[in-house]
Amino acid sequence: MQPAIATHGGASAIPDEVKEARSQGVQRAARAGYCVLREGGTALDAVEAAIRVMEDDPVFDAGQLLPPRVGADLNYDGEVELDAIIMEGKELRSGAVTCVQNIKNPISLARKVMERTDHLLLAGKGANQFAKEMGIDEVDPSELVTEMARKEWEEYREFNKNVKVSYTNRADFGHEHETVGSVAIDKWGNVACGTSTGGITGKLAGRVGDTPVIGSGAYCDNAYGAVWTTGHGEAIMKVNLSKTVLSYMEHQGLSAQEAADKAVGFMHRRVGGAGGAIVLSSSGDLARSFSSQRMAWAFAKDNSVRYGVDPGDDHDGGKIA
Amino acid sequence: MQPAIATHGGASAIPDEVKEARSQGVQRAARAGYCVLREGGTALDAVEAAIRVMEDDPVFDAGQLLPPRVGADLNYDGEVELDAIIMEGKELRSGAVTCVQNIKNPISLARKVMERTDHLLLAGKGANQFAKEMGIDEVDPSELVTEMARKEWEEYREFNKNVKVSYTNRADFGHEHETVGSVAIDKWGNVACGTSTGGITGKLAGRVGDTPVIGSGAYCDNAYGAVWTTGHGEAIMKVNLSKTVLSYMEHQGLSAQEAADKAVGFMHRRVGGAGGAIVLSSSGDLARSFSSQRMAWAFAKDNSVRYGVDPGDDHDGGKIA
Repeated sequence: MQPAIATHGGASAIPDEVKEARSQGVQRAARAGYCVLREGGTALDAVEAAIRVMEDDPVFDAGQLLPPRVGADLNYDGEVELDAIIMEGKELRSGAVTCVQNIKNPISLARKVMERTDHLLLAGKGANQFAKEMGIDEVDPSELVTEMARKEWEEYREFNKNVKVSYTNRADFGHEHETVGSVAIDKWGNVACGTSTGGITGKLAGRVGDTPVIGSGAYCDNAYGAVWTTGHGEAIMKVNLSKTVLSYMEHQGLSAQEAADKAVGFMHRRVGGAGGAIVLSSSGDLARSFSSQRMAWAFAKDNSVRYGVDPGDDHDGGKIA
Repeated sequence: MQPAIATHGGASAIPDEVKEARSQGVQRAARAGYCVLREGGTALDAVEAAIRVMEDDPVFDAGQLLPPRVGADLNYDGEVELDAIIMEGKELRSGAVTCVQNIKNPISLARKVMERTDHLLLAGKGANQFAKEMGIDEVDPSELVTEMARKEWEEYREFNKNVKVSYTNRADFGHEHETVGSVAIDKWGNVACGTSTGGITGKLAGRVGDTPVIGSGAYCDNAYGAVWTTGHGEAIMKVNLSKTVLSYMEHQGLSAQEAADKAVGFMHRRVGGAGGAIVLSSSGDLARSFSSQRMAWAFAKDNSVRYGVDPGDDHDGGKIA
């Protein structure tokens, strides 16, 4: 099997001034993951490596060129709570964390959950306690919070200060989705997927979005392929978007592209949510479908990279040395 | 539409000495939920009422006849962490909580998440903070812990004290699964499902099992029906068991029973897990499938109750006055 890896940097209305930087960021991550695959690494290794590159990359923090930490949006209480998942398609093993604080690379903690516990998902205090036992250093919370994120949070609080009690129908803040993700297939034909996020500005403390929820934010099975999703997390969860994509491939014999388009369309019709899915089929074909304005993506295969941001983009990113 | 409701008390090797009490417990819950439906309540109202009856019923705490609190298994650190989900099939709205502490009726907190927030799932400290803001009283932790649960935890810790670092391959403790759940359909043809659990003895702090994960522990859609599952949570999550049942009905035109059997069989083959699913189809038919030894269930429809515990059971539980 020809190894391949795709990366993305979140579906949202990416501002023009950071479009180029984000596009470069997903390409760097795809190149890093591809090198892992080319050197004989597994799809899991490649996905983890690619996501770490993006977690460490400041361009995914709302475009602020700050010290090399991915920033995260602040929850209603002004705290950072991070989510991540990683999964492989041979035995359907996976690991995930949610509402974890002060961890620089949640994707690697998710992998530890997969490999070192009997569980699939650890939340909050327990997830941080597990990180400590695994020897993963906590970072100072300030390292994960940028001025841009704090400013957005302050505006959000000001705008919503009268609606706290009901919570629902709060202003749609047009917030940046900080989600990054990757899907890969290795030379043995094993697929893997992963995704990592800081969530959305003003989410309630303890909010678990689609990202760490298996079948919603990500899913893979060697029989069909690997999927990750990004967009309005609650809508994605309502329809189990990742699993829905694969079920169209399984039961209706659709291609990855047809299945992704159909699933994203179904979500929009059934629950009104915007978002996108990227699918890497078990034959190594990439499909992208998104109803948001932009999504930065890159795809590395056969020693070269392709990439795009706007709908319809499919640019040549050159060779991988 | 003829309203109907089913309840269950967890799939496991239920000891003979508590078999009768558990059977009575699920029947009481089904009767309570049915009365809500008969009086014009919604499927959501009925599911919540039925689960509250079981959450408050001591027979679901490993058979100890103690004060009226459902006890919960203790996690590795000796704490109680509760999970619950509730969902309706018209607009696919749902609410869930995980790792919540000191709450007597997690199912009602889950419903508050559905109705009073923009989110679907709240975890840990954030979920408890939300409960407080909703005016839900916390109970003393000791009210949720029985002697039986503490004793099982102590034995578990003793047995596993040398394997803490790796976590995996810990002794299978044959622990009781405290999961309770319900599916219902109301006179308008709307389906709903819900489930509530204390998890498994010795789970790591922060462990999120299948119960609060939409598509795994529960799912429903008016077009097909309502599903909940019980058994080995991590296996159920790996295959998104609830969603898989409905996808067989959607894509292959299988009956609820055929779909449940096929999905439980697939889970067992693909990832080796034991468990069960109960499905109430959108035409009001009940299907049960479980690979565990016993599962207490009851079904109320047409002013009468049917029930069972052992495979093949289908007893007449009499009229509902």
